[in-house]
Amino acid sequence: MHPVAPGGTVGILGGGQLGRMLAMAAARMGLKVVVFAPERDSPAFQVAGAHIVAAYDDQMALQRFATQVDVITYEFENIPGDTGAFLASLKPVRPNPTALAVIQNRIGEKAFVQKLGIGTAPFAAVTSEESARAAFVTIGAPAVLKTSRLGYDGKGQRMVRAVEDVIAGFETFGRVECILEGFIDFKREMSVVAARGADGAVACYDIVENLHGDHILRTTLAPAKGPQRLKAEANKIASRLLEAFDYVGVMAVELFEAPDGRLLVNEIAPRVHNSGHWTIDGCTVSQFEQHIRAVCGWPLGDVTRHSDAVMTNLLGDEVNAWRTHAALPATAVHLYGKTDARQGRKMGHVTQLYPLGTRPDAFER
Amino acid sequence: MHPVAPGGTVGILGGGQLGRMLAMAAARMGLKVVVFAPERDSPAFQVAGAHIVAAYDDQMALQRFATQVDVITYEFENIPGDTGAFLASLKPVRPNPTALAVIQNRIGEKAFVQKLGIGTAPFAAVTSEESARAAFVTIGAPAVLKTSRLGYDGKGQRMVRAVEDVIAGFETFGRVECILEGFIDFKREMSVVAARGADGAVACYDIVENLHGDHILRTTLAPAKGPQRLKAEANKIASRLLEAFDYVGVMAVELFEAPDGRLLVNEIAPRVHNSGHWTIDGCTVSQFEQHIRAVCGWPLGDVTRHSDAVMTNLLGDEVNAWRTHAALPATAVHLYGKTDARQGRKMGHVTQLYPLGTRPDAFER
Repeated sequence: MHPVAPGGTVGILGGGQLGRMLAMAAARMGLKVVVFAPERDSPAFQVAGAHIVAAYDDQMALQRFATQVDVITYEFENIPGDTGAFLASLKPVRPNPTALAVIQNRIGEKAFVQKLGIGTAPFAAVTSEESARAAFVTIGAPAVLKTSRLGYDGKGQRMVRAVEDVIAGFETFGRVECILEGFIDFKREMSVVAARGADGAVACYDIVENLHGDHILRTTLAPAKGPQRLKAEANKIASRLLEAFDYVGVMAVELFEAPDGRLLVNEIAPRVHNSGHWTIDGCTVSQFEQHIRAVCGWPLGDVTRHSDAVMTNLLGDEVNAWRTHAALPATAVHLYGKTDARQGRKMGHVTQLYPLGTRPDAFER
Repeated sequence: MHPVAPGGTVGILGGGQLGRMLAMAAARMGLKVVVFAPERDSPAFQVAGAHIVAAYDDQMALQRFATQVDVITYEFENIPGDTGAFLASLKPVRPNPTALAVIQNRIGEKAFVQKLGIGTAPFAAVTSEESARAAFVTIGAPAVLKTSRLGYDGKGQRMVRAVEDVIAGFETFGRVECILEGFIDFKREMSVVAARGADGAVACYDIVENLHGDHILRTTLAPAKGPQRLKAEANKIASRLLEAFDYVGVMAVELFEAPDGRLLVNEIAPRVHNSGHWTIDGCTVSQFEQHIRAVCGWPLGDVTRHSDAVMTNLLGDEVNAWRTHAALPATAVHLYGKTDARQGRKMGHVTQLYPLGTRPDAFER
């Protein structure tokens, strides 16, 4: 496809905070935006010139959407396969729906990663009581049982310690296909946000360390502390995945640092990612602009970090402290325009900047 | 007034690139935006949740606008006095229309500045042939004749060397009130962008140097090189002005560095300013967010510069080089979504970042 030049229009599937920040990045680039989402009060609608409220399987609405835009991208990975295929028949969809299809199934995803010679937790499929028993023999305890189709923020997963837990979990999840993953007693959870341009160029932001609570990201430390080798290894993993998927856009790779120091792929997010929010304030070109650049066929932007950063999510009623955060030095406050501060809901984030190398535990350079 | 909390709505008069960047800053803060502008394809409409297309003297439309917002601000200083007064009777208007009224008349503005003990070029009013002669005797040559009501980017002004030039200019400008200003053979044109919060707090971004061509800003060097004294003097001038106007919001003060090293006020812009665009990429909190913070009663943000910067406007068809700029390292590209690249029109800008103190000619710290 031809590059989408300024004045062109980007279509975004999904109207949450990621879609919102993508739309704002596109606007900065002189691009117009149409957001497609089923929720009437989607946060991204407030910053886009146009939007369509419809279900993801509403073909009439999808068709109308496709005619209004030059390229289509998405903010989340749970897009129905039919939706992606239908849209791809009308306009370029980036990243390509094939990558999406692989990533939407945890078993297919892990198999894909391993085939590239990249480490993951050991895993086995669970599709029946019989396979549950076999899987438990293979993987052992402790392990994590997950639905193989994607959940979100820890939904559809549980720790298991005995074969009965596996069978009970399989029943609880409605006897859908599950994956049993060996539990990794990781030292740290990290991630690398990387992009591949339409021209095949790859650029990786610094690897970061992520701190979770209740399966929800709380804090990202950018960059992660540790030897330079970690960064090189993370970049190698991300580059290999981007190329193997013939991927165009931003991808986040969630990593475990195993006890032996190796990096294992935990999950791939075929989209901009919460652990990349710090790039808005810590880099010249944010992950959101980078994604829009890639899907529009622009040159990738510079991923050099100009400041160290600590990004903290504001969950639920934590957002009520906006005034306190806004008064702190070197702090950028980002609020998502959501009205209902439900418990655990991502309402905004704050990024605290530090001059390069001065953040406590800064990455060895 | 109470602070406008996240979820509240900011009304912006004017839909150009300044309104657009104000709207994007407000969105980042979780605020909604309504833009009011007469032009149907205003760039700011593309990034705002709502807009009203109407003339600035359309009272019905202004009333509708006022009912939709919690606070009203503006992107330009040529707002008709009646519009400001009418809106102020309905909702808080910040900065206050009184400051606007003073600044809208160059004679009143310069008199106001001088009364505070701040230097300006010498000036005299021209309202007739007789006063033209008197003014020329007082001011001498060379001088600059300007309409006393605001022009824009050098429109409504001309150099004069003889009394006949003054009279001819006065005729050309339609015998409206004019100001004759002594020509300052300045060393540099500089500016300081500063803000005053609703709580009276004042914060000044680093003083910058501005390079013009054809009376249009081409390039801003942030920070300006020179002794620390310059910065302190600029901040003192800005603070005094902000307080004297009981001003709430961002103000830009254009300065001449006189041959003797003193700073003279050239013009006051009661709004965000082109010479402050570098703050989007060079500071944690941009001038746009700072302005929205101030008018909404939020605490002012940190104005510390994390990077040195060179901001260059893309005028007219220079915007066609967007792809070249987008491929440069450490470069942020900002395009305004305008379709018609008329000669001299501000279509976008690029900001090149440098680590602190490494830009050629960096400010002495």
